[in-house]
Amino acid sequence: MSTEATTTTSAACAHACSFTREKLEQVLKRRFFYAPAFEIYGGVAGLFDFGPPGCAFQNNIVDAWRKHFILEEDMLEVEATMLTPHDVLKTSGHVDRFSDWMCRDLKTGEIFRADHLVEEVLESRLKGDKAARGIEHKEEESDEKKKRKKKVKEIVLVKLDDDVVEEYESILAKIDGYSGPELGEIIEKHNIVNPVGGTKLEPPVPFNLMFDTAIGASGNLKGFLRPETAQGQFLNFNKLLDFNNGRMPFASASIGKSFRNEIAPRAGLLRVREFLMAEIEHYVDPLDKSHPKFKDVKHIKLNFLPKDIQEAGHAHVIESTIGEAVASGMVDNETLGYFLARVFLFLTKVGVNPNRMRFRQHMSNEMAHYASDCWDAELETSYGWIECVGCADRSAYDLTVHSQRTNQKLNVQQTLDEPITTEDFEATLAMKKFGPRFRKDAGKVQNFLLTRTQCEYEDLAKELNDTGKIVIQVPEIQDKIELDSEYIKIERVKRTTHVREYTPNVIEPSFGIGRIVYSILEHQFWTREGDEDRGVLSLPPIVAPTKVLLVPLSNNPELQPIVKNVSDFLRKQQIPFKVDDSSASIGKRYARNDELGTPFGITIDFDSLKDHSVTLRDRDSTKQVRGTYEDIVAAIREITYFHGNWEEATAKLTPFESQSEDA
Amino acid sequence: MSTEATTTTSAACAHACSFTREKLEQVLKRRFFYAPAFEIYGGVAGLFDFGPPGCAFQNNIVDAWRKHFILEEDMLEVEATMLTPHDVLKTSGHVDRFSDWMCRDLKTGEIFRADHLVEEVLESRLKGDKAARGIEHKEEESDEKKKRKKKVKEIVLVKLDDDVVEEYESILAKIDGYSGPELGEIIEKHNIVNPVGGTKLEPPVPFNLMFDTAIGASGNLKGFLRPETAQGQFLNFNKLLDFNNGRMPFASASIGKSFRNEIAPRAGLLRVREFLMAEIEHYVDPLDKSHPKFKDVKHIKLNFLPKDIQEAGHAHVIESTIGEAVASGMVDNETLGYFLARVFLFLTKVGVNPNRMRFRQHMSNEMAHYASDCWDAELETSYGWIECVGCADRSAYDLTVHSQRTNQKLNVQQTLDEPITTEDFEATLAMKKFGPRFRKDAGKVQNFLLTRTQCEYEDLAKELNDTGKIVIQVPEIQDKIELDSEYIKIERVKRTTHVREYTPNVIEPSFGIGRIVYSILEHQFWTREGDEDRGVLSLPPIVAPTKVLLVPLSNNPELQPIVKNVSDFLRKQQIPFKVDDSSASIGKRYARNDELGTPFGITIDFDSLKDHSVTLRDRDSTKQVRGTYEDIVAAIREITYFHGNWEEATAKLTPFESQSEDA
Repeated sequence: MSTEATTTTSAACAHACSFTREKLEQVLKRRFFYAPAFEIYGGVAGLFDFGPPGCAFQNNIVDAWRKHFILEEDMLEVEATMLTPHDVLKTSGHVDRFSDWMCRDLKTGEIFRADHLVEEVLESRLKGDKAARGIEHKEEESDEKKKRKKKVKEIVLVKLDDDVVEEYESILAKIDGYSGPELGEIIEKHNIVNPVGGTKLEPPVPFNLMFDTAIGASGNLKGFLRPETAQGQFLNFNKLLDFNNGRMPFASASIGKSFRNEIAPRAGLLRVREFLMAEIEHYVDPLDKSHPKFKDVKHIKLNFLPKDIQEAGHAHVIESTIGEAVASGMVDNETLGYFLARVFLFLTKVGVNPNRMRFRQHMSNEMAHYASDCWDAELETSYGWIECVGCADRSAYDLTVHSQRTNQKLNVQQTLDEPITTEDFEATLAMKKFGPRFRKDAGKVQNFLLTRTQCEYEDLAKELNDTGKIVIQVPEIQDKIELDSEYIKIERVKRTTHVREYTPNVIEPSFGIGRIVYSILEHQFWTREGDEDRGVLSLPPIVAPTKVLLVPLSNNPELQPIVKNVSDFLRKQQIPFKVDDSSASIGKRYARNDELGTPFGITIDFDSLKDHSVTLRDRDSTKQVRGTYEDIVAAIREITYFHGNWEEATAKLTPFESQSEDA
Repeated sequence: MSTEATTTTSAACAHACSFTREKLEQVLKRRFFYAPAFEIYGGVAGLFDFGPPGCAFQNNIVDAWRKHFILEEDMLEVEATMLTPHDVLKTSGHVDRFSDWMCRDLKTGEIFRADHLVEEVLESRLKGDKAARGIEHKEEESDEKKKRKKKVKEIVLVKLDDDVVEEYESILAKIDGYSGPELGEIIEKHNIVNPVGGTKLEPPVPFNLMFDTAIGASGNLKGFLRPETAQGQFLNFNKLLDFNNGRMPFASASIGKSFRNEIAPRAGLLRVREFLMAEIEHYVDPLDKSHPKFKDVKHIKLNFLPKDIQEAGHAHVIESTIGEAVASGMVDNETLGYFLARVFLFLTKVGVNPNRMRFRQHMSNEMAHYASDCWDAELETSYGWIECVGCADRSAYDLTVHSQRTNQKLNVQQTLDEPITTEDFEATLAMKKFGPRFRKDAGKVQNFLLTRTQCEYEDLAKELNDTGKIVIQVPEIQDKIELDSEYIKIERVKRTTHVREYTPNVIEPSFGIGRIVYSILEHQFWTREGDEDRGVLSLPPIVAPTKVLLVPLSNNPELQPIVKNVSDFLRKQQIPFKVDDSSASIGKRYARNDELGTPFGITIDFDSLKDHSVTLRDRDSTKQVRGTYEDIVAAIREITYFHGNWEEATAKLTPFESQSEDA
């Protein structure tokens, strides 16, 4: 692994130096990786369509994900519906708590997301302060950076008091952790107003981020578009456990769209209203979160940003092996640690620069309502550090609430090696007496008496023993009820059980595929030295949209049969390729291709007619080798699908004098 | 192809004989192919979740689809959003016309889909009539059939007049073609009421089948969940044409979920509210719908049910090659014909029985609002003939309406070999005179004068010539306007153009993946002779959820290392497999596996330790052969991914005396 990581690193580092977002965006637009949806209708914020290369790139990432996680780890894939009835999301807590805080400008009707607004205004004031102090870093500024700066409104050169600067910085470090009322206080205290026009804003109110709709012709069944795939997995827990022959631990997984009605989408693919997720729900015994394969990954080094560092207002990372991180307790348990390492391996495999990845722990006040611990894999982009994979320990939260709401058991029956003896209170009722006395309420009273907790039984037993009767208040029955020992007996009963029942805990790695797609595009984009208009996307072959570009040297019809032969051979080997037989020069065709991230080029010329020989070009180095097309395709297969590297895979082929790429 | 078809046929025919839906459903439930969504909450009609085997089966079908269509035909894959703003679907006609007709029972609140109600009631009356005449076929009735019959309400033994029987039969043959008012008349005339209780129903009213929602925090932007993926492709037409370097014809394709708020979902996976579609939009010159690859498929025989046969109230098919069908004009053009043949090849490849497939043409009155011709690939199931793929000629409808609505050109510029000369009327305005006279209305008047049709210009030119002036009525301006030749000249102008501009026609094959999934499950399910409880799903290896079941003969730890070796080898060869090391007998494990549709079993025993030899079992024939695991896996690979057949692929292996499967 470490080799793999290093290779990617050095290449990526070279790329980063020449990176500008503007150039990348031009390429992505020109080559239709993706584009704003409904553009001819003026577009809708937060909705994007993927064109052919973006679509293939994303599909390949999903495919790699399925192999890396589902097949490799024998997970149970599930596809649940996006339409979800109200009751399910009420129980899961999303109806009440899946919200962002928004502030309305009553005068203009404009709506702001409260935390983003605070962030934008305070950052802008800090910049104004730095400028006023004349202490701004004289860093080399790219056009892009200058352009971004211009966009920030309200940069006014005002020097702030030192303690104000400190306070602003502390707020910004903790911005993800504030509640709505806290944001309201900050807005009030620091006089944050609409940056355009300066109008005062209403205090933050929660805005639920789910899209709602009605299911069926009557309109009576309220529903939502799911905000995550997880709930659909939890609801199928019993069927999945059964499918797994009752064995624990195991994981389910889902790949599919989820929806989030963002208040003010921005930052392109990073904050969208409809997005592809890949989620794993790993069900584990709460008493044993060890992982049998942890030893295989414990040497892997990750960058950690734990919560205590953030809560102190800092942002520096600690490098550590995942083995040490679990041993020290920084990462709670082996299973969580195992997944952090597997996430790291996956992300580097599909093209993320490991030097621009960190694992940030959630602060206690920013955790989702269902989570007991959470680490985000964050990727660095020109928009800052972006959460791309959340690894949460959801404990037994979801299974418990759904089970309570539906009265269906969602738990595991574990046959014990050693039986356990328990001594619990149990109530015995004289059933026949209840009907005549309570009539239609008899069921309610009996049910109440049979479903008390151990503590309550202890109290009732004492009351019955001391006074010869108990007095109870049954819900939905107005009067108190008095019962003596003719009706009820409460005794401690000793039982030996061979089965332990428990609700599993859930460790959930949750991937935002669109964010990963975008981050890789940033990490792998660079321009050729000396020719900054020639962009290259160094996408790893395994996820590149197309693997091979087939380029006949000219339009001459004599070349057609050999182009067909090579095409048929590639198709038979199931290697995705494109033919470019346009009249553009070889150099232009390769330049176009570099922008599409195609790792290999095969040039067919007149010599190919004689001896089947063709030229193979490597996108990143522009190195070329010559050989029969059968050998060339074998090398491509080896590199793309079987972890081969260029040097070894092409060792038997003949180096070829490069044709000028500037043609 | 014909060989392939025959093989599938004979096997499938044997299966069909022993088919009962009840048994299939038990297997699908037991093995969690799919299940009602939100079942622990009581379920929601028309929503289903896929479990691990269903999910893998569906993914493999999608994968085969992508290879068969997108890669093989070099289509441009697009992924557009599901959320769609109101304006787009208003323009496409879905807001006004994407409806079913529903009847409400005002007394009970029950809602019926009008055509389904008519169908159910008339079928039931015809059965009652047959029973009363004592002419019902004394066919062998399966339990399943008996059970289904019981479900039909209101079977009353009433003999009907012969002409009534004929009328009912004619209505049922044309049931897909009636408008709402026509259904209303039938309901009225034949006194169709709520089958339960007999209440009279309200006349049919249209119910729009789209789920609606609001996008954004203000709630002002109304939107829908898309009813098809097509619109997202059309809106990107310019970008796609550009990506294709301006070349025509070409196709885009999308795979994704669409939504339909069915009035009364029934029939399991066949009528659901959220479903996976795969749609192709093939853009073609309206003047030339030939297809370069038509010659490759024209010999393929299909079963056709053209509209004239249906409109005469019949349902018998015509067998014909697609070549003859296009030559005779029954199928409109080569491109449509090419896709019908390709659809046939795809469906048989993934497991559809070709004898239970027909291509039914839409009658003129049942066509979707956008279609000019349409052929459905229908598959026969226990629910009757089901539309699984619609092949519509959408003409230039969608591109035209979106272009008109947005004022964006959505067309093709074709460079002509020979320039064309045209002579058209053109208006020349004395622009400077309009401002002083019409002030703020000047633009409106000018725009009106510059955007008339050729016919209108001809009339205006005549008027101007005859009377020396024209009188016009401009929209949004109250008074008529009189203009003389000081203001406007209208003349015929001769122009030579080297470019032809046209709006492409669209041929659309649209696949309902869930319906195909279910039909294949019916077509490939059978039970072993002499043991009707042992179900088998003979899914083709390429789409089977898992390819191999690895079965160690016993739990003996000595076998573990060789199990690991074979597992590693399968993983390296990227062949999806499962290990079943449970303590169940070999026979039980294989029986379980047959239900999961896994085509191959590898048994590992104590001999395997000595010489790497393992036993390979064929699911359908239960034949077994013996060889080294390397050779066995090579045979599996050949059959699964490279069209190999069992006899050839296992020729070099040793036949093996079958262990009893009844163990």
